Amino acid sequence: MYNCIICRYHEIATKGNNRNMFERCLVDNIRRLLKGIVDCKVLRVRGRIWIEHPEKRNYTQEEVENMIPALEKAFGIETFSPAMRVDSDMEAIRKTVISMVPRVFEGRPDTVTFRVRARRSNKSFPLQSKEIEIDLVSAVASCFDHRRFKLNLNDDAELTLGCEVRDEFSLLYFDTYEGPGGLPVGSNPRVMTLLSGGIDSPVAAYLIMKRGSPTDYVSFHSFPYTPEETTEKVKTIAAHLNTFQQAGKLHLVNLLEFQKAVRDNCSERLRTVLYRRAMLRIAERIASETGCRALVTGDALGQVASQTLVNMDTINRAIDMLVLRPVVGEDKLDTIATARKIGTMELSENQVPDSCTVFAPSSPSTSVPLVIAEKEELLIPGYAEIIDRIVASREII
Amino acid sequence: MYNCIICRYHEIATKGNNRNMFERCLVDNIRRLLKGIVDCKVLRVRGRIWIEHPEKRNYTQEEVENMIPALEKAFGIETFSPAMRVDSDMEAIRKTVISMVPRVFEGRPDTVTFRVRARRSNKSFPLQSKEIEIDLVSAVASCFDHRRFKLNLNDDAELTLGCEVRDEFSLLYFDTYEGPGGLPVGSNPRVMTLLSGGIDSPVAAYLIMKRGSPTDYVSFHSFPYTPEETTEKVKTIAAHLNTFQQAGKLHLVNLLEFQKAVRDNCSERLRTVLYRRAMLRIAERIASETGCRALVTGDALGQVASQTLVNMDTINRAIDMLVLRPVVGEDKLDTIATARKIGTMELSENQVPDSCTVFAPSSPSTSVPLVIAEKEELLIPGYAEIIDRIVASREII
Repeated sequence: MYNCIICRYHEIATKGNNRNMFERCLVDNIRRLLKGIVDCKVLRVRGRIWIEHPEKRNYTQEEVENMIPALEKAFGIETFSPAMRVDSDMEAIRKTVISMVPRVFEGRPDTVTFRVRARRSNKSFPLQSKEIEIDLVSAVASCFDHRRFKLNLNDDAELTLGCEVRDEFSLLYFDTYEGPGGLPVGSNPRVMTLLSGGIDSPVAAYLIMKRGSPTDYVSFHSFPYTPEETTEKVKTIAAHLNTFQQAGKLHLVNLLEFQKAVRDNCSERLRTVLYRRAMLRIAERIASETGCRALVTGDALGQVASQTLVNMDTINRAIDMLVLRPVVGEDKLDTIATARKIGTMELSENQVPDSCTVFAPSSPSTSVPLVIAEKEELLIPGYAEIIDRIVASREII
Repeated sequence: MYNCIICRYHEIATKGNNRNMFERCLVDNIRRLLKGIVDCKVLRVRGRIWIEHPEKRNYTQEEVENMIPALEKAFGIETFSPAMRVDSDMEAIRKTVISMVPRVFEGRPDTVTFRVRARRSNKSFPLQSKEIEIDLVSAVASCFDHRRFKLNLNDDAELTLGCEVRDEFSLLYFDTYEGPGGLPVGSNPRVMTLLSGGIDSPVAAYLIMKRGSPTDYVSFHSFPYTPEETTEKVKTIAAHLNTFQQAGKLHLVNLLEFQKAVRDNCSERLRTVLYRRAMLRIAERIASETGCRALVTGDALGQVASQTLVNMDTINRAIDMLVLRPVVGEDKLDTIATARKIGTMELSENQVPDSCTVFAPSSPSTSVPLVIAEKEELLIPGYAEIIDRIVASREII
């Protein structure tokens, strides 16, 4: 049915000198995403990415249907279309269109509104765009009883045939799918996401991958105060996020020793902030050791006690490394919508206790000044050694 | 036509102990937004915000139409409806609905699909929700020839009458408008947005206001190397953003002395990063002096040379203060869509040179390690004094 998939990008086209690097990265990612799904060659041709069978045969309907969800994960792609590539010759174009008609119109209602959109970059082609459109509308019409076929020149036709006439060849396609947009993952350096079992942090990881940075993960538990399910849930989420990228590692960190020290030495209302400061310190340490260049969190301003502006500032000052908070300006309902779209919502909804809930104060302070947090941390004997032990005893998956 | 506006919120309802503070903040903001538009009393009643005329008279159609765009700027509101408040008495409800019909159906086509959605929190009310719906559908039907009126019980009716029967009174409304969501601006401490003339930073300021923090602005120019229009444009954008909040101050900073020092002493490819580090230092200084608790920027990961991950980290390490980057995970096309929605796009589109373009390198480095930036800054004689002079000579509007 189709002998190629054409992938269009937007932001990469603005990249001037570095455009080559972005395009190569996208090609590599598409190869990875399609591996085990279809045999393919992935090529760069004139500002587009092409996917075709190595033996130049057509892809079956089933193969095309399997490729679609994979390409919907290829950051950098704006849209893509399964297409027929033919010679830039009107007779060949017309014959190919007619051969596509039965399949495309199959199972549709008695009256279908239809249009053609032609573009011509080959200026020596004998017909102009409008003439190509008229020619192909007639060709399609000739396949049907005239009562069945309705011509519509507006934008709301149910079926649109796209026709691009280029110098080397022409392209014909009916369906255009949305890609995820963004930049190819791998075009920016690796980051480290603080992954909880919640809704926000997987969305944060996704958004930063979409801007080009692959991510590793660090997640905190308090075994045996949190159950096995806590880490199982995070593993499932990380595994799902890894379907969008070159597989990232998951660092599972048991925070319990630190939490006990806080419980025994510090004032209860500050626990949330002190936990978060330690989490950032541990994450920064692991990120530095493993070559990650920034941290990513699911913080949303004002959402919970640790996310008031004052507490975020006090927590942030525990470390020097850049922290990216891509959902900091999002409402929960918007983040939930994104989580549903990317398939993490159903994984996050499963309620299990996380590390933050262990010894959690009933009424955490919403405004802890930096000096207070620092003073309180001095009350914890061997703070640095506790962090060292926690980092060293982490599990890496 | 309507004797009240009912405003519904979502996230505020989750705020437990602090809910009162959020509600009061929202009430204050609504009063401010409606000032000079209508006379009103703004009240909190059972998990909703009410707006009504101080003399209990109905609002005119014109008054209602003027209130809608103002309420669309009230962060914290999810939806709102102009409504009629009546006694919780079926006869009164029916009569009021009939009195609303001519106006609501005026100018509509010959056939209108219509439904009623009733809710009853007053459990002693003699009719159940379904019975109320049937009663009111009949009442509306009685106003029309039966060929004109079409009853539709599906969700896609063109007109929906909402009826809420409460203990003290009942509410009737036809239209529900979307509010902006988020948290009332002022419920989090003030921040300082680095405002350029571009598309991203006004959207960043908006998103953080929407999460509760009012913002001041700092903007950089290089007069006379940048024209007067540069600052005029930023003033216009700040004035527009201030319509969403308690007016924020604009600090206009001339960066030229620093830029000349960089041009004369540092390697050309590093200029972009050195400029940005100085901008953050100046912004942090002004923010601290004026009680702002964080900076806000329009950085989007990977978008331009200063926004690669390595450069963002190197720039970020110039200061200790929290930096919020709410569009860091957004594609440009999404940010443009938000800019259109909030009315800043048309202000940003007007192209004038900004401070960043002065002595800008033709090929800025996309990966400047921290140590290199710090070494280069040592080459600038009197770095600290230059920053002092620039901060002191700023213009405040």
